[in-house]
Amino acid sequence: MGHVRLPRLFAYPQGRSEMDEIGQYLARMRATTPLVQNITNYVAMNVMANVLLACGASPAMVHAREETAEFTGFTQALTINIGTLSASWVESMLLSASVAATKGTPWVLDPVAAGATTFRRATAARLVALQPTVVRGNASEILALAGEAGRGKGVDSADGVEAAEDAARRLAALTGGVVAVTGPVDYVTDRRRGWRIANGDAMMPRVTALGCSLTGVVGAFIAGQPAAEATVAALAFFGLAGEIAASTATGPGSFQVAFLDALWQLTPETLTARARVTPA
Amino acid sequence: MGHVRLPRLFAYPQGRSEMDEIGQYLARMRATTPLVQNITNYVAMNVMANVLLACGASPAMVHAREETAEFTGFTQALTINIGTLSASWVESMLLSASVAATKGTPWVLDPVAAGATTFRRATAARLVALQPTVVRGNASEILALAGEAGRGKGVDSADGVEAAEDAARRLAALTGGVVAVTGPVDYVTDRRRGWRIANGDAMMPRVTALGCSLTGVVGAFIAGQPAAEATVAALAFFGLAGEIAASTATGPGSFQVAFLDALWQLTPETLTARARVTPA
Amino acid sequence: MGHVRLPRLFAYPQGRSEMDEIGQYLARMRATTPLVQNITNYVAMNVMANVLLACGASPAMVHAREETAEFTGFTQALTINIGTLSASWVESMLLSASVAATKGTPWVLDPVAAGATTFRRATAARLVALQPTVVRGNASEILALAGEAGRGKGVDSADGVEAAEDAARRLAALTGGVVAVTGPVDYVTDRRRGWRIANGDAMMPRVTALGCSLTGVVGAFIAGQPAAEATVAALAFFGLAGEIAASTATGPGSFQVAFLDALWQLTPETLTARARVTPA
Repeated sequence: MGHVRLPRLFAYPQGRSEMDEIGQYLARMRATTPLVQNITNYVAMNVMANVLLACGASPAMVHAREETAEFTGFTQALTINIGTLSASWVESMLLSASVAATKGTPWVLDPVAAGATTFRRATAARLVALQPTVVRGNASEILALAGEAGRGKGVDSADGVEAAEDAARRLAALTGGVVAVTGPVDYVTDRRRGWRIANGDAMMPRVTALGCSLTGVVGAFIAGQPAAEATVAALAFFGLAGEIAASTATGPGSFQVAFLDALWQLTPETLTARARVTPA
Repeated sequence: MGHVRLPRLFAYPQGRSEMDEIGQYLARMRATTPLVQNITNYVAMNVMANVLLACGASPAMVHAREETAEFTGFTQALTINIGTLSASWVESMLLSASVAATKGTPWVLDPVAAGATTFRRATAARLVALQPTVVRGNASEILALAGEAGRGKGVDSADGVEAAEDAARRLAALTGGVVAVTGPVDYVTDRRRGWRIANGDAMMPRVTALGCSLTGVVGAFIAGQPAAEATVAALAFFGLAGEIAASTATGPGSFQVAFLDALWQLTPETLTARARVTPA
Repeated sequence: MGHVRLPRLFAYPQGRSEMDEIGQYLARMRATTPLVQNITNYVAMNVMANVLLACGASPAMVHAREETAEFTGFTQALTINIGTLSASWVESMLLSASVAATKGTPWVLDPVAAGATTFRRATAARLVALQPTVVRGNASEILALAGEAGRGKGVDSADGVEAAEDAARRLAALTGGVVAVTGPVDYVTDRRRGWRIANGDAMMPRVTALGCSLTGVVGAFIAGQPAAEATVAALAFFGLAGEIAASTATGPGSFQVAFLDALWQLTPETLTARARVTPA
């Protein structure tokens, strides 16, 4: 894996783990305002940038073949999302992923609808071969990446998270990185270890591109932080903001507004107190 | 026309018509969660996906030449919008429309600013020749498609709906499908029959891409339902959500939020009760 | 400069200036509903169109090589934003800027992240050579355009507005037009004269593409109005809407909603009363 592992910032008393102080990952991310380059789909660009700004990161949407590699050379993290693919973008994705690998910049792959078409399966396979620091997808997508026939055809998952846990571990073994399967209860593994994250709300899949935006948030969290733990923290943070938003929303419109406000307002202390993370 | 006609689900007592039970089209659409592929413009992609999710459909924005035909092969409906054209996208549009025609998948054409430039006029004509199940445009656009010189130059209509009714009937005769002219009072025709739909609010044209989003909603409604009646129902549903949103909004920002919530909350019963549809 | 100077609509009593009646520029813009063509980035397209609609202008997002020049032939203003560049778009930008120059249509250049990559520096230089009526950027971008090494790498400015005032005047001398440096306090110059505009709120950079959207608003204001004064008015108007939005917002989500509502509701009288413009 390419990312830089930070020295541990604190020691854990017996019976406690890093995940007991999960708010720390949010605090450190905000303290560094990481510049996160996102090669993402047209549907997600605006909301993903707004989500990253609301979290406290600095997003940049750069994808042109003419400049993407140069830009990746000075970003703190990179995310690649295959939502609205085209041939020229695939070239940019491969260029930037290679730069990230060479420079040790952490990067996240979001294999949107990876199993839906031949073009997607081929592109996703080429990107997986470049060993993403984190792969973040729904169950159908992770199953497709691991070579199994899931049931998803569109962008929504037709498979449960638990059905994809084995596939996630095998995929993590293949990339040497972290794999996150998101759904009603998320699952994160680095092959050796595993976590389940129960934060979230049923309204979240009713707003488009929130999953894509979460990929950006994972990118922001893993910039300069241990990838597995930071990914777990990003998922708990994102899901908790969803819970807070749902407590006032009356539909997907007001939910989206309240969600951005919640990302902005959420403190590390609240995250530590309300994260629902268990070892798996 | 390519779409599959469902058997009638109920019989009408004398003096009543399908449009008296208009909420049924919403209920059946939600019951099937149709996968709707949208080849649409960059401005509309996000809001169109959110509108479709709020309605209860499953949107997918897929447009790459490398995969669009394969994807259209398993969608329940297709919509094509020429808002932000480019040469490679035109190719994708023609490929997917051909697949839809071959497979009997219903599809909707949204001829944005069809009369504005030579490139648009030519592209729109090629798509019309592929006999869309429904054409949904404003008056200036429908006049342009029917070969008449309207006054619209940008994306906003400069002509009244009534001025385009003859053109709509001629266009419907040409495509063998349905034509919907939207404006303060919408007009729908399948050449033989006609309806006027009076639902809507003056704030709707002040939010970008709501017309484009309506095209997506028409796509969702005509998946597996009779095209003319389902189009009328989609227009009444969309307009009624606008009326509900306008009752609390204080500008186009709060309107857009309330509109998504209203699409989400609106029940078939309320649609039946408040739809303002008359034969024309 | 290409734009048409309107005859002055009113005379100023001694000791007063055009800027004392700054609401007039808003009133005249709304009275003409200018058609503004925007070649802008994917992140900004939707919010920029919504901002222009909320202001009272008529936005059109047209950028295809096949039609952009023809379309520019009948627009009232053009804006060009290099946020998400690609080779084919650069061609469209140069084509449309040339048409605007030839026809005397005012146009605005938004040099997003101009200093970040070689591709951006080269593209920005070619556009500057076509003498934009207005250049609108943050301090890092204006420094980069003027050939100075700023500190900005991503899309956010790393330099203060005051540090870019000299560069702005030199750039204005080069283009023969107006240069606006935006930040906590904006600076506008046409080389001879200068203004500072203190309206705005710290939440504005936390919503993506508001700077890009401001470029569109400048385009709408300079359509048929004197460029320097109309630019100052656009900046004060935009900043004041931000102040109004901030008075009720609880985060970047609710801010964006309230901001669109404020643009819609703001009257010329309120703008005149609350604009904070001083000569510089």
